[in-house]
Amino acid sequence: MLHPDRLLPSDPTTRDIARNLYSRVKNLPIISPHGHTDPAWFADNQPFGNPTELLITPDHYIFRMLYSQGISLEQLGISPVGKEAGVSVDPKEVWRIFASNYHLFRGTPSRLWLDHVFAEIFDMPDLLTTDTANDYYDNIDALLQTQDFLPRSLFERFNIELLATTESPLDDLKHHDVILDSDWQGRVVTTFRPDPVLDPQFEGFKANLSILGSITGKDTTSYSQYLEALRDRRAFFKAHGATATDHGHPTACTVNLSLSESEALFNKVSTSDFSAAEAELFRAQMLTEMATMSLDDGLVMQIHPGSHRNHNSHLFETFGRDKGADIPIQTEYVRALKPLLDRYGNEPNLSIILFTLDETAYSRELAPLAGHYPILKLGPAWWFHDSPEGMRRIREQTIETAGFYNTVGFNDDTRAFLSIPSRHDMSRRIDCGFLARLVAEHRMDEKEAFEVAEMLAYDLVKQAYKL
Amino acid sequence: MLHPDRLLPSDPTTRDIARNLYSRVKNLPIISPHGHTDPAWFADNQPFGNPTELLITPDHYIFRMLYSQGISLEQLGISPVGKEAGVSVDPKEVWRIFASNYHLFRGTPSRLWLDHVFAEIFDMPDLLTTDTANDYYDNIDALLQTQDFLPRSLFERFNIELLATTESPLDDLKHHDVILDSDWQGRVVTTFRPDPVLDPQFEGFKANLSILGSITGKDTTSYSQYLEALRDRRAFFKAHGATATDHGHPTACTVNLSLSESEALFNKVSTSDFSAAEAELFRAQMLTEMATMSLDDGLVMQIHPGSHRNHNSHLFETFGRDKGADIPIQTEYVRALKPLLDRYGNEPNLSIILFTLDETAYSRELAPLAGHYPILKLGPAWWFHDSPEGMRRIREQTIETAGFYNTVGFNDDTRAFLSIPSRHDMSRRIDCGFLARLVAEHRMDEKEAFEVAEMLAYDLVKQAYKL
Amino acid sequence: MLHPDRLLPSDPTTRDIARNLYSRVKNLPIISPHGHTDPAWFADNQPFGNPTELLITPDHYIFRMLYSQGISLEQLGISPVGKEAGVSVDPKEVWRIFASNYHLFRGTPSRLWLDHVFAEIFDMPDLLTTDTANDYYDNIDALLQTQDFLPRSLFERFNIELLATTESPLDDLKHHDVILDSDWQGRVVTTFRPDPVLDPQFEGFKANLSILGSITGKDTTSYSQYLEALRDRRAFFKAHGATATDHGHPTACTVNLSLSESEALFNKVSTSDFSAAEAELFRAQMLTEMATMSLDDGLVMQIHPGSHRNHNSHLFETFGRDKGADIPIQTEYVRALKPLLDRYGNEPNLSIILFTLDETAYSRELAPLAGHYPILKLGPAWWFHDSPEGMRRIREQTIETAGFYNTVGFNDDTRAFLSIPSRHDMSRRIDCGFLARLVAEHRMDEKEAFEVAEMLAYDLVKQAYKL
Repeated sequence: MLHPDRLLPSDPTTRDIARNLYSRVKNLPIISPHGHTDPAWFADNQPFGNPTELLITPDHYIFRMLYSQGISLEQLGISPVGKEAGVSVDPKEVWRIFASNYHLFRGTPSRLWLDHVFAEIFDMPDLLTTDTANDYYDNIDALLQTQDFLPRSLFERFNIELLATTESPLDDLKHHDVILDSDWQGRVVTTFRPDPVLDPQFEGFKANLSILGSITGKDTTSYSQYLEALRDRRAFFKAHGATATDHGHPTACTVNLSLSESEALFNKVSTSDFSAAEAELFRAQMLTEMATMSLDDGLVMQIHPGSHRNHNSHLFETFGRDKGADIPIQTEYVRALKPLLDRYGNEPNLSIILFTLDETAYSRELAPLAGHYPILKLGPAWWFHDSPEGMRRIREQTIETAGFYNTVGFNDDTRAFLSIPSRHDMSRRIDCGFLARLVAEHRMDEKEAFEVAEMLAYDLVKQAYKL
Repeated sequence: MLHPDRLLPSDPTTRDIARNLYSRVKNLPIISPHGHTDPAWFADNQPFGNPTELLITPDHYIFRMLYSQGISLEQLGISPVGKEAGVSVDPKEVWRIFASNYHLFRGTPSRLWLDHVFAEIFDMPDLLTTDTANDYYDNIDALLQTQDFLPRSLFERFNIELLATTESPLDDLKHHDVILDSDWQGRVVTTFRPDPVLDPQFEGFKANLSILGSITGKDTTSYSQYLEALRDRRAFFKAHGATATDHGHPTACTVNLSLSESEALFNKVSTSDFSAAEAELFRAQMLTEMATMSLDDGLVMQIHPGSHRNHNSHLFETFGRDKGADIPIQTEYVRALKPLLDRYGNEPNLSIILFTLDETAYSRELAPLAGHYPILKLGPAWWFHDSPEGMRRIREQTIETAGFYNTVGFNDDTRAFLSIPSRHDMSRRIDCGFLARLVAEHRMDEKEAFEVAEMLAYDLVKQAYKL
Repeated sequence: MLHPDRLLPSDPTTRDIARNLYSRVKNLPIISPHGHTDPAWFADNQPFGNPTELLITPDHYIFRMLYSQGISLEQLGISPVGKEAGVSVDPKEVWRIFASNYHLFRGTPSRLWLDHVFAEIFDMPDLLTTDTANDYYDNIDALLQTQDFLPRSLFERFNIELLATTESPLDDLKHHDVILDSDWQGRVVTTFRPDPVLDPQFEGFKANLSILGSITGKDTTSYSQYLEALRDRRAFFKAHGATATDHGHPTACTVNLSLSESEALFNKVSTSDFSAAEAELFRAQMLTEMATMSLDDGLVMQIHPGSHRNHNSHLFETFGRDKGADIPIQTEYVRALKPLLDRYGNEPNLSIILFTLDETAYSRELAPLAGHYPILKLGPAWWFHDSPEGMRRIREQTIETAGFYNTVGFNDDTRAFLSIPSRHDMSRRIDCGFLARLVAEHRMDEKEAFEVAEMLAYDLVKQAYKL
């Protein structure tokens, strides 16, 4: 079902070149420096549940598409907050709904990932349809109970050299402890994602500050001790393998407030009501503070701005976060990052990786910034743009200005563990196709293209994330 | 003159696939759910005037290009407002000006549409040039007087299954009555376009409210009766076949005002001076009101924002509206639509089709919105973007996130009746080329591509517009 | 090393057509109507210095990329302001640094330009690498001292029909005088770039006004005499061959102030502190004033907005302007230009060429504006977008709306004299590739494509710049 030339350009000259390039990178180990898999899987190494629970319910790419066509979340077994116990949906019935709507995914990357998972991982010979839905379910369900489909077995089968998860500063990283203490050789590291204690508009922000205080033994009603507590948690994360932080702010805004201004602002947002502008200002200052700390501890910063989170207020109120209703918004970088860049833009020992959901920033802002500032690198196509066309656009719109060496290879950014091989494979194929076009148009020598293909698939990510 | 493979990709593998796909859809009936042809043509079925009056004078795509190169509107026989009687230009002379400037249209969709009209409809064997201008004119002029070129004959020859026109709520729809009462089988329906009575900045807004009142017997100085009058006109339009409304606001702004706020605002904009912000707020509230009414009467909403109308103030003052000087502006959807979506975004019985002139919204805003909200669908490439490159961009930038099934097929949106077959043909060819690339790159199975091609050419539009 | 088919599409059908088109335009003379070469080169006709001084130190495309990867400007022999005498770096060592980092330029237009310069101009048979660095340096260094590599010899060898430089109104144009008075036939004209005396935020603005006064004998503390002084300098530039002005404002903003408002604003910005908004307003008014003067003297206006100049404050303070840290910002045209267009948009004798660093404006704003207003033309892909992908995007995103005839051919906009042939060659190849695709997709007749290719390479630029 999977064609060996899938995702390669159709022009025969270009395809031949692309095939050669791809043959050199297809078996390179996977490095996944940014993602959202559950470390408990690798700590406990228990069988995954059923096909629905593994492949559908947690994947917002899938359920948002079904939802857009009138299928309710309840039908898919997703429970309203507080009613988890009350909902009972047969997972096999959910699977059948999914199968009978599989045509909705035509033309989407989800479809390509899923076909890859079904064919490569579960060895299903036929297309998923209403007719094959039951066979699919039963077959996958049975395989998941076998030794070969335990999380660690799959990790090894996927040839993953390193996998990063993402945790809140309030997380005790106990699963990472288990992994580190085990005799399993798989490398699973954490990433420091401090939004819950940096963003005054995050649910439970004030309570989170208290927890941060009690975890670290600091008085987080004091700004200086709050910063100290953050430093502590960074050190704790670093001890658990973290080489990077991740910041999912609504915008890329940064500022350079004085200490007294910062303190006053912290007091406001941590103890009383505050305006949206004050929250934004605090987040902006905290990005600069995080850069200060990164200069000390060497953690690479990742800035992922530009999502209007939880846009569907009814779904958010009923079902909570991450229900497929995060919608990108226009995102500005040039003015937003200037305060941080004014302070640290030329530091040799700082590294910040920028992502965007606003593709208009690629050629206009991000490539020129990454092509100049020593501290800036450009992340891969992200989220909605982690797709064949999206990956091609980011190459076409940034490489001419930023070059390849100011980019950081591929991130899969996924919760869907089984899709990791297919996502990295897609990236390698699209990159080889892009390079093949440069070669076919005599814009790059084939020998150099081989080097670049390997850099993009393997070396750049190790360098950028200090792995 | 028309190559059978025109607009298909040049790579031989891809072209073969595209040809096969196209052969399956090229003869499907045309459904034109959104356009601006004159219903009087089909009511009266009188011969069109002369070639100039049919093909040049009413087509702002054509005269704006000639104007941009220094040819005055007067030279083209377009009269200043109030001086219609005073201008006398030989239509054949206008035709010769057009012919001698035909090179200006190289690379534009107008050129492709015109070549198609000339070759397919009028059977002209040679290119339009200064030398062939007179022959063209005489030949077309003669044909237009024949039975086969009467509006209804062409409608049938074009294989149009349904054609929607667009009318103001103040229109009496008498032409639609004539068509409905005739024994002609052609389906020509209307569309409810209430801008003249919803937009306080529309020319004659206050007078329009009075007319609305007298047509409906409502006191349109009262907000509640104004809404009632709108409901009445919607019912009247629905009785004349309308299945949709159309809203050409400057922005996509919506709000959710209280009744008392709405009333106060209505009183302001309908009786006294008001600010641009108040006009914008009123339009925003009226979009929400239209959604409320659509929930009741089932009319599909179309929102077409983002045109800075009548940008050329000299032309507007002299010649009036629609003189080729409507220029797109940046258009935001995510925040703009939120108030309406907060209220109605999850309604199973509401359908809103979004259009844009700002292509940056495709991948950033519109595809994610349409790929999540049940009430939202994404319209086709519109106006300036209704072109080979524009159509390809909308597919490349939206399908991966929204899928095909959250789109609505093709709209020709034209006043140029004769161009309808060529516009639909262009759309089918570009879509088949896009699908062929997916097949050639093994991103879609050919069998599925056939299904999608038919959906895009025929089924989706019927579903989306409830036809 | 240079493949004869480089930059042409790889599909064989399209490549054949592209080759034919290119063979017709490749040897056309170069017209370079907008650039930043040093007229002293052609006045004095002295040998260029060494390879580093010629090819690296002055080229911000090159040193910004090296800088982005941690190489300091000092290492490259670029001196902090005021310390020019204090820095001593071996130019051959700089060359070696450059050579050992040549891989950074893979995929960038700089790489293609440099390879072209090395192969075509200096006849170097091998790739520049660490190993060949010394040979490269010595060979180029030796050639630069020969008669054939003097500026005028290269000008002739490059087949340059006309080259425009860009000067401040305060420049005495003495080099142009020397050229005009010489018996050399090369045409080198100037361009009037008044930013230093129009932009209150330009370094030394107030001092510049004084100099403008003393040069012209006008009292530039008076607004009317200030305008008179500008008129004088325009006449002086015109007498030195200028046919155009160039305006590098941060935005495209224009306004139409009354005389008294303009006077008051001028008094403010020329004598006291002023806000950023006042500076912007003054620049906006001055664009309108420049248009007024262009109506009189016929100089073509060029508006190049949208660069956030000197974004890296540390580099700017230490090294001054033009150190690779100008970053594009979002740029709006539709509302910004309206005041100027309201006043002059329909003038038959005014011509304004618009450029952008914000590609989102191509299809949304610039093509619709240029496709309507008689005074507007669309400039070529500029700066970061002067690249194979950038050139292709501007064609794909503007021609369908603006047509070819509202564009102005190619500008190289370069300080790097030796790169001029390669830049024009790139443009011709990409345009021929674009046209070839139109032909291969039967969207344009081959005969018409030949005409358009020649227009784009030669005729349009002469018409647009009145050369």
